[in-house]
Amino acid sequence: MGDEGTYVALGLKVWKGQIERADKLFGGLSSEEVLREIAPGRNRLLYLWGHLTATHDAMLPLLGLGKRLHSEFDVAFVSNRDKSQAAIPAHEQVRQAWKTVNGELWKGFEKMSWSDWLQRHTAVSEEDFAKDPSRNRFAILLSRTNHLSYHLGQAALGLK
Amino acid sequence: MGDEGTYVALGLKVWKGQIERADKLFGGLSSEEVLREIAPGRNRLLYLWGHLTATHDAMLPLLGLGKRLHSEFDVAFVSNRDKSQAAIPAHEQVRQAWKTVNGELWKGFEKMSWSDWLQRHTAVSEEDFAKDPSRNRFAILLSRTNHLSYHLGQAALGLK
Repeated sequence: MGDEGTYVALGLKVWKGQIERADKLFGGLSSEEVLREIAPGRNRLLYLWGHLTATHDAMLPLLGLGKRLHSEFDVAFVSNRDKSQAAIPAHEQVRQAWKTVNGELWKGFEKMSWSDWLQRHTAVSEEDFAKDPSRNRFAILLSRTNHLSYHLGQAALGLK
Repeated sequence: MGDEGTYVALGLKVWKGQIERADKLFGGLSSEEVLREIAPGRNRLLYLWGHLTATHDAMLPLLGLGKRLHSEFDVAFVSNRDKSQAAIPAHEQVRQAWKTVNGELWKGFEKMSWSDWLQRHTAVSEEDFAKDPSRNRFAILLSRTNHLSYHLGQAALGLK
């Protein structure tokens, strides 16, 4: 493995570490606990968990790894605020989707070579990518890892 | 610039983006507002800002970029909880230190070559580094960026 592979391996290690942190934090909650708000009047833990699941699900097509598995999560957890929808996916559905989506992502990551990470992501056109090659898949990995950390910091406030 | 440089540039871009986000969030607060808790009974915004400053200050020696500038921040913002100390650095001191520390870090980053980032950080011995070369400076950059995101997510709750 050359030096390029070292950077990718580091990026993946940090991603994996944050996923494990989220597994532990959200995975240990009961169906009552996931409905707890992180602070009075703020998002519930289930909303954050669903929001992260939907965001990670959208990474599948963005990184060219496959179709979305749970685009129905967007209405409940992305395009609308918490507590604005009459019905949202239940605790068990979010738990399952979180596991499936991150499993699929990881399988895809393992198949990618270090140079694949420098290819454009699918939300940028070839023309725009030619102008700014930093809009690549590795940039998505880093930014989504930080997005996960951002909400993990919030979710931690919802614990006892 | 080879591909190795591309990864480093991406890591630095994400770091810079989060620093700018923090500049905007914390920099826009009045001296009354920084004393607001992010949620009832939780850390105050000033504590988070000081905590991030101290953490970034410690990156200077960790990355071999120089001595710490504000090690006195640790008592107030790292080794003790918020509201446990009789006196902590004031708003203006934190603002100045945040600016100085991140400025010094960036100056150091600009002097580093991509291969410098794969060198061991100073908290790991040569022996341990030989066993696990992932304990390098790029790993510190990625993990500290995520640490920043984690607390930014919390700090955002303290805004109106």
